[in-house]
Amino acid sequence: MPRVPRLKSDNVLVGFDTSDDAGVYQLDATRALVQTVDFFTPIVDDPYTFGAIAAANSLSDIYAMGGAPLTALSVLCWPAAGDEADLEAILRGGGEKMIEAGCVVIGGHSVKDEEIKFGYAVTGLVEPERVWTNAGAQPGDWLSLTKPLGTGVISTAVKRDLAREADVAGAVQSMLKLNRAPADAQVHACTDVTGFGLLGHAREMALASQVTLEIDAASLPLLEGALDYARLGAIPGGARNNREFVESCVRYLREIDPAVDALLYDPQTSGGLLIAAPQAYGPLIGRVLPRGERPLQVR
Amino acid sequence: MPRVPRLKSDNVLVGFDTSDDAGVYQLDATRALVQTVDFFTPIVDDPYTFGAIAAANSLSDIYAMGGAPLTALSVLCWPAAGDEADLEAILRGGGEKMIEAGCVVIGGHSVKDEEIKFGYAVTGLVEPERVWTNAGAQPGDWLSLTKPLGTGVISTAVKRDLAREADVAGAVQSMLKLNRAPADAQVHACTDVTGFGLLGHAREMALASQVTLEIDAASLPLLEGALDYARLGAIPGGARNNREFVESCVRYLREIDPAVDALLYDPQTSGGLLIAAPQAYGPLIGRVLPRGERPLQVR
Repeated sequence: MPRVPRLKSDNVLVGFDTSDDAGVYQLDATRALVQTVDFFTPIVDDPYTFGAIAAANSLSDIYAMGGAPLTALSVLCWPAAGDEADLEAILRGGGEKMIEAGCVVIGGHSVKDEEIKFGYAVTGLVEPERVWTNAGAQPGDWLSLTKPLGTGVISTAVKRDLAREADVAGAVQSMLKLNRAPADAQVHACTDVTGFGLLGHAREMALASQVTLEIDAASLPLLEGALDYARLGAIPGGARNNREFVESCVRYLREIDPAVDALLYDPQTSGGLLIAAPQAYGPLIGRVLPRGERPLQVR
Repeated sequence: MPRVPRLKSDNVLVGFDTSDDAGVYQLDATRALVQTVDFFTPIVDDPYTFGAIAAANSLSDIYAMGGAPLTALSVLCWPAAGDEADLEAILRGGGEKMIEAGCVVIGGHSVKDEEIKFGYAVTGLVEPERVWTNAGAQPGDWLSLTKPLGTGVISTAVKRDLAREADVAGAVQSMLKLNRAPADAQVHACTDVTGFGLLGHAREMALASQVTLEIDAASLPLLEGALDYARLGAIPGGARNNREFVESCVRYLREIDPAVDALLYDPQTSGGLLIAAPQAYGPLIGRVLPRGERPLQVR
């Protein structure tokens, strides 16, 4: 993104120019707003499910900063010839997921567009001293990943008519899951894993925290079927871009199954939280080391 | 918009289902969040100016509720083949207008799109007892309109190569103006005049307040050239839709110049505030009467 003039404010705890998941603005001694906006084109056929995934995905940036969602505004691009029943299903899916999250939709905006796009601008609250940025990972921390990888590979398999119904249903269930973290979590650093893939987002955490993240490829939680489809070559274009961008930051300590390796770069929709903490919050996938030769290493 | 399930919350002072300009969520005894999202396709050729108008327009919904803008998230739809210099100019124009408003841009989202669209999700603060809704207009109040009418007619004249350069510049200056209201304003009801035109937005205020708004057609502030172009037939399609929707609510007390009448329905971009108050806040355009035969009357 180009450089843009911005107001300087001491209240901005996390701003536009970092790679964090959402902006954070301090209101007073005990409260800060955490804010994000995200919307995208349909990634599943069923409109209700698409709306719900779009909501879960927008909320994820709030959870990834340690925030609790409060309010949301819907963002809708809709074709003039669009089916009104589909629109209602999208809004219902999103609305019910927002209710599940305890988040009130208090407005929104829609524009005409050739292509459907949907999502939310979400505002949450967070204690200023408990903001989870990318920057706090400490050597000795464990790395947890709260959802299995593979939504990009499975979406690609769907497009190529390779995907088994049960595997698609598994991916959808995972995308629908809210990234809520336990209220008492002692988290040092956190990000949600989305378009840049696990290693793309891990890279941002490693650089911001000035550490090396070691990922244990054998411990990765994977969606049912993801390995099979990766072996069949159902690799999304985004995975190639992610690899190009990140690979020079990665040291491989051993040879990795190419299908597992592909999943390290697989772009996720509504993916899980990558958490660096003294304890586990989901499947453990590695640990935080002092900064070594490269910011990432895979064993 | 279809019916959508939403969380019930006593903290929602102004929600999705009213016709107000923005949602309002009470944080504590003295503070409420006021939130809106708005974005649209370019309405002027110059990208810097487009960005600045988009910002002024997004901020307007906050001012129209009596709020002070605090934070913003940019919303961008951008073509793959778009000119990077244009993008930078749009973001710069928007960014500098946000600085003028004292509003910090702390994030944003962009998606690929055939067509450029740009705007902001804006959050402001407002005192819960000082929220300006559509609903508070009282018989005896004066009606002020803080910007001249005619941006729709002038845009249409531009498309038909009818518009004089000076008139276009005048419309642009008006759209760029922030709708800031004086801090000590004693306002009973307020809305900003945008796509539904003066009478469309006046109708919402009249219905919500259960009063009749009387507009004095001879007192309307008009952009330089707007009457000429209206006489030449440069009436935007939106004006016809607005008239169809609103006209049955309007009682005409005398015959009005058809060109002036057209401007009563002209859709505005970044239009002024329509304010009902015991005193004037800009050009006076009418007064509030007890509910009469129809919610609107024009003299």
